[in-house]
Amino acid sequence: MSTIQTAAVIGAGVIGNGWIARLLLNGVNVNVFDPSPEAPKHAAKVISNAERAYANLLSVALPHKGQLSFKSSVAEASANADIIIEAVPERLDIKQSVYLEIESSASTEAIIASSTSGILPTELQVELEHPERMMVAHPFNPVYLLPLAEMVGGEKTSAAAIEKASDMLESIGMFPLHIKKEIPAFIADRLLESVWREALWLVNDGIATTEEIDDAIRYGFGLRWAQMGLFETYRLAGGEAGMRHFISQFGPCLEWPWTHLMDVPEFTEELVDKVSNQSDEQSGAHSIRALEQKRDDNLVDILKVLKDNRWGAGNTLQTFEERLTENTAEINFEALDLNQPIETYTTIVPQKWADYNGHMNETHYLECFSNAADKIMAIVGVDKKYIAKGNSFFTVETHIRHLDEVLVGEGVRVSTQVISGGGKKLQVFHFLYHQDGRLLATGEQMLIHVNLESRAACNPNELVIDRIAAVSSAHQNLVAPDGVGRAVAQKL
Amino acid sequence: MSTIQTAAVIGAGVIGNGWIARLLLNGVNVNVFDPSPEAPKHAAKVISNAERAYANLLSVALPHKGQLSFKSSVAEASANADIIIEAVPERLDIKQSVYLEIESSASTEAIIASSTSGILPTELQVELEHPERMMVAHPFNPVYLLPLAEMVGGEKTSAAAIEKASDMLESIGMFPLHIKKEIPAFIADRLLESVWREALWLVNDGIATTEEIDDAIRYGFGLRWAQMGLFETYRLAGGEAGMRHFISQFGPCLEWPWTHLMDVPEFTEELVDKVSNQSDEQSGAHSIRALEQKRDDNLVDILKVLKDNRWGAGNTLQTFEERLTENTAEINFEALDLNQPIETYTTIVPQKWADYNGHMNETHYLECFSNAADKIMAIVGVDKKYIAKGNSFFTVETHIRHLDEVLVGEGVRVSTQVISGGGKKLQVFHFLYHQDGRLLATGEQMLIHVNLESRAACNPNELVIDRIAAVSSAHQNLVAPDGVGRAVAQKL
Repeated sequence: MSTIQTAAVIGAGVIGNGWIARLLLNGVNVNVFDPSPEAPKHAAKVISNAERAYANLLSVALPHKGQLSFKSSVAEASANADIIIEAVPERLDIKQSVYLEIESSASTEAIIASSTSGILPTELQVELEHPERMMVAHPFNPVYLLPLAEMVGGEKTSAAAIEKASDMLESIGMFPLHIKKEIPAFIADRLLESVWREALWLVNDGIATTEEIDDAIRYGFGLRWAQMGLFETYRLAGGEAGMRHFISQFGPCLEWPWTHLMDVPEFTEELVDKVSNQSDEQSGAHSIRALEQKRDDNLVDILKVLKDNRWGAGNTLQTFEERLTENTAEINFEALDLNQPIETYTTIVPQKWADYNGHMNETHYLECFSNAADKIMAIVGVDKKYIAKGNSFFTVETHIRHLDEVLVGEGVRVSTQVISGGGKKLQVFHFLYHQDGRLLATGEQMLIHVNLESRAACNPNELVIDRIAAVSSAHQNLVAPDGVGRAVAQKL
Repeated sequence: MSTIQTAAVIGAGVIGNGWIARLLLNGVNVNVFDPSPEAPKHAAKVISNAERAYANLLSVALPHKGQLSFKSSVAEASANADIIIEAVPERLDIKQSVYLEIESSASTEAIIASSTSGILPTELQVELEHPERMMVAHPFNPVYLLPLAEMVGGEKTSAAAIEKASDMLESIGMFPLHIKKEIPAFIADRLLESVWREALWLVNDGIATTEEIDDAIRYGFGLRWAQMGLFETYRLAGGEAGMRHFISQFGPCLEWPWTHLMDVPEFTEELVDKVSNQSDEQSGAHSIRALEQKRDDNLVDILKVLKDNRWGAGNTLQTFEERLTENTAEINFEALDLNQPIETYTTIVPQKWADYNGHMNETHYLECFSNAADKIMAIVGVDKKYIAKGNSFFTVETHIRHLDEVLVGEGVRVSTQVISGGGKKLQVFHFLYHQDGRLLATGEQMLIHVNLESRAACNPNELVIDRIAAVSSAHQNLVAPDGVGRAVAQKL
């Protein structure tokens, strides 16, 4: 499976920066060329948005962040890159001149991928010396969150190059969709363009405002399309009789005046004003950055529920996390410092962890401790592979003391001390700290090793027993934590 | 605010049944006419889907389910209804004859609402005696989950009738969107029709299959549209410069061949076959019912995360739940039986509560106890109103014993015993039971009454003190629960 060590991104606008963020956070080194002196500043903002989103999106650790370097020319950025991503303005002449400069320094093996929304790859690759490795990889904003990349080859693109590039994008958590016939604007932007034109007619003719149109989407069919798309949704609208019934019922509408799209609205200054002003009225109260964060929060949570439901884009996230887990260096038990509690969990408190009291709800204190216990289990050898073989630890008892509060957006971390361990039992004590150092809570837990078939307690394997013994005996030398062995309502 | 006591639904297909389910579960009595002898069977399936979805969707209780009656004529169904919803086939002549029969028995005050996807209300109401109360209320499948209803009046519809009908739909959790100018197919179906035509072209011309088109939507822009719609999404694609930049950049595309829609694909038998066969290939492995449940699970979870994020369709759900809470009879403290633990929480374990061990994760045991504690607080007078005035209870300590397991889809309930209470303190003991009677876990908690301004402990008001004293002294007579006062790892 092809992965990416070094990537080049040519053009650091909204799309280029999205690529940069996704690549960097996946451990890829990224060389960038953009003529604007403001480019590093804008890139930093998008990377920070992406870091915020990934902290909430992923339940597993990302690799170490790649190195970001701004280069002074297209050629300099393209040298040594495994893939060169072009995200410059939508003009054929500009794009073609960029490719010439890319080829002046790039390896002949390097993939060249255009982010164009609609220009045919056959036209793009016309002047290339090695056109077989050039294609369209059309992503969607925000590139660091949306999995789709439309992969479109031109007449001279090789099948092997499409496959290699698709592997590369899968390795950074994307869903490459190979479109087998070239057509301007490919699939998604053809659908989008038809909606966009219809929507402009509705605004132009004063039927509806931009806000009413957005509401007609996001309170209705937009919710369906996040998971099923057009045809599968309509299959259900056909009832038990499915798609054939639906299409027979609604086919005749093709003859009806249900869209304006036998024609294109004229692109006048007046229409631009109308749309821009209505959009200001609709969304102007929020800054672009605030809207971006809201969008990202929503996308992250939608992707996560789709993952929990094993569906659609959630499957891509699931595969991505599994790959990250595989790629994560095995826990190096020998290198752990056992002379202090072990760092077991860190996160930033998301909005949905807040309750009506305005702080992190008690449920999520236990969520932090539960994740910390999972980490301790993995450290002593009870990782996903071990569990897949039919044994695990179950929590049988927990005691939590709430000592202080934490608000949304603040960072927390957990460190864990092993109180005792041996045979089937593992007793741990978690400390939940605020990023400012305050101790927020403690959690004491008794875990019992079980057979997942019989659901009965049993002894772990030798490696696990040895590791628990090692941690447990080292942690005997630590100070007994305040509150260990405490019962609810016990006098101090 | 207008609410609905009794509704009539004429036509029990996919849309009619969706209306029936939403109305019934909101406590409305529904009289139905449909000529098919199979109608009650099909309705029962949709109602069962809706009950399953609502159990997971709502964090508050629904009112008692309404009464469903199948009637033998349109006239009989329409008598005594506050609103008569027409969901018969999309033919003007059929719809008009239904309206005549509705008017033969309906109150002149009753709202008549058509579910048409595109016929103009002015045409629909032409022959009515009281056309001022007739309009389009166009819902989206599944009607019991998607909040949108496009409200469109005809030339003779009164503004008061639109407002009354909108209030009625809001009272059953919907988002009525008033479309102020009549146009065939209104807003949403014009957008959908333009996408549908473009998608049919893509299939017709062999550019993409139904599955590839669905994937191009649901791995990409569909995820955006669930929350922001078209214009707000594009505002962000414009970067800091917003909509004006976006539209100036992409306006010229209107001249480009980025959609086929200067023309309509011919609706041939061959195209019907192609679409139906591809759809079978794509989705045929799942039954329609399985797909419906998957769709509902996804929609429920997407609506819930949007609620948590205070955004879009989540705001409608939030308002709906607040209304349900208001309408729930005040807790009648005097009527509580204090000779036993108090029933405080009940739910069905959702998929996402499961962990890699295949059972409900420990975090959600505490979530159940936390919800139970909220209920106890509300019972002793610390409800939303009380908290809004600046005081609440915070949990300071929790002890959980895990005694048995529970799997996804199984029911659980919590009952709670007050161990002690007085002054700032409230000590409770929760029992989590499986629907089959097994005790799954116990949770002991110490809550402290605090001032939300100073975050310091303080005494509750007199009513709260009196109620805590009453429950606490009654519960002194109960047997002390097994495990009360226990510490982690304490010997039995």
